[in-house]
Amino acid sequence: MQRYFLDEPVTESVGTTFVVSGETVKHWVKVMRATPGEQAEFVTLTQHVLIAQLVNSDGQTATAKVDAVTTPNVELPVAVTIACGLSKGDKPEQIVQRGTELGASAFIFFDSQWAVAKWAKNKRERKLARFAKIARGAAEQSHRTMIPSVSYQADLTALRTNVAYDTGVVAWEESAKQGESSALVQTLKTVVAGQRLLAIFGPEGGLSEAEVASLTAAGIRPVGLGPRIMRAETAPLYLLSNVSFWSELV
Amino acid sequence: MQRYFLDEPVTESVGTTFVVSGETVKHWVKVMRATPGEQAEFVTLTQHVLIAQLVNSDGQTATAKVDAVTTPNVELPVAVTIACGLSKGDKPEQIVQRGTELGASAFIFFDSQWAVAKWAKNKRERKLARFAKIARGAAEQSHRTMIPSVSYQADLTALRTNVAYDTGVVAWEESAKQGESSALVQTLKTVVAGQRLLAIFGPEGGLSEAEVASLTAAGIRPVGLGPRIMRAETAPLYLLSNVSFWSELV
Repeated sequence: MQRYFLDEPVTESVGTTFVVSGETVKHWVKVMRATPGEQAEFVTLTQHVLIAQLVNSDGQTATAKVDAVTTPNVELPVAVTIACGLSKGDKPEQIVQRGTELGASAFIFFDSQWAVAKWAKNKRERKLARFAKIARGAAEQSHRTMIPSVSYQADLTALRTNVAYDTGVVAWEESAKQGESSALVQTLKTVVAGQRLLAIFGPEGGLSEAEVASLTAAGIRPVGLGPRIMRAETAPLYLLSNVSFWSELV
Repeated sequence: MQRYFLDEPVTESVGTTFVVSGETVKHWVKVMRATPGEQAEFVTLTQHVLIAQLVNSDGQTATAKVDAVTTPNVELPVAVTIACGLSKGDKPEQIVQRGTELGASAFIFFDSQWAVAKWAKNKRERKLARFAKIARGAAEQSHRTMIPSVSYQADLTALRTNVAYDTGVVAWEESAKQGESSALVQTLKTVVAGQRLLAIFGPEGGLSEAEVASLTAAGIRPVGLGPRIMRAETAPLYLLSNVSFWSELV
């Protein structure tokens, strides 16, 4: 069933009606050609999912009636923020789109010493708005109950200062296996459901040793992601898959 | 350091020389502008890595001298074959490129009941040759010691008959958590180093229940990949990341 996110609070009980507008009506009524009686899923601001049927639409707004209220459990038990250096081309889009499918809670892009890509100040807001739209679409497609946020931080110091987290890791090739298991596994063992994990990744050129040292000094743990070298846009997907495996499947 | 795969056997001992040609010379000497004395890495057919320096080149061939022979351990302990239904657009390329970074041993594309994409017979070889080139480039970039193979099978029956494996799984949304841990975790616990895992994924439209039933009857286990819905090109990356996590990090 088609899924949409609601932008305003609605009464979450069977039999009540609510009104949708904008892109949702455009897609549901114009693209999908829904007719009265047809159902879709609407995610509320409180992460419940309403199964609702179309009552009527004038093409600009649509009225829907709630047939059922459900509370699917589809979000990662750990809230993962993926923080990435600025990478070139469509890499940031790819990170947002696939990272959303894999359950990330937030994406932050930050400037760093060896970043080749630069985000001009006047283009930054437009970029972030585009990524937010990609996150929304991917969240709908992967049937999530929240849309990950997308934001920008000027550098690693701003990132550490402005972002709240319980545990922090930084992807670092030089981090070898320590004892029985990797630093990543050791870290995941300490994170409990409901906590916030901040995972930091360099741009294509990587982070400098000084940058990693400053993160380590702040209690953020360098973790290796296996013996193969991954592209900047693949490493976050590897980490998210592992958080899911560890917290949802094992 | 730049890495290239050798296509012919060479003497793997320090001080000996060997000759490279074709794309490797074009990239090493023309694109990277290597000069005599400069080193690169050459992966031999036996998965050793030669650190070798350029002796001389006429632009068509180049002679290199072996400075060191190494045996890096960068391949997944379990040989994973990723078999995917035919999906549209650049999805097969994405699967090959990122799946190579994540350690897959082989990729197989197969036609299935609900596949929207079709590979016309006269274009099949050209497609496979292109994907093989993508796999080679990704294997060089991610510093692997083998190039995954890429091939085609007409359907699931041909796939099961023609592909050798020790354990088989099929990604199946309907497969819920069974007892303490998921079917995927239970399966990975039974696979030991040196074995071959065949992992089957549907196209965008998924596999039919009949197709999954025929695989199950043949001993291939349906496994869920967490509670979120993933695109056809994301699911194989999730599985490969988890095989790496389980066999290389835990």
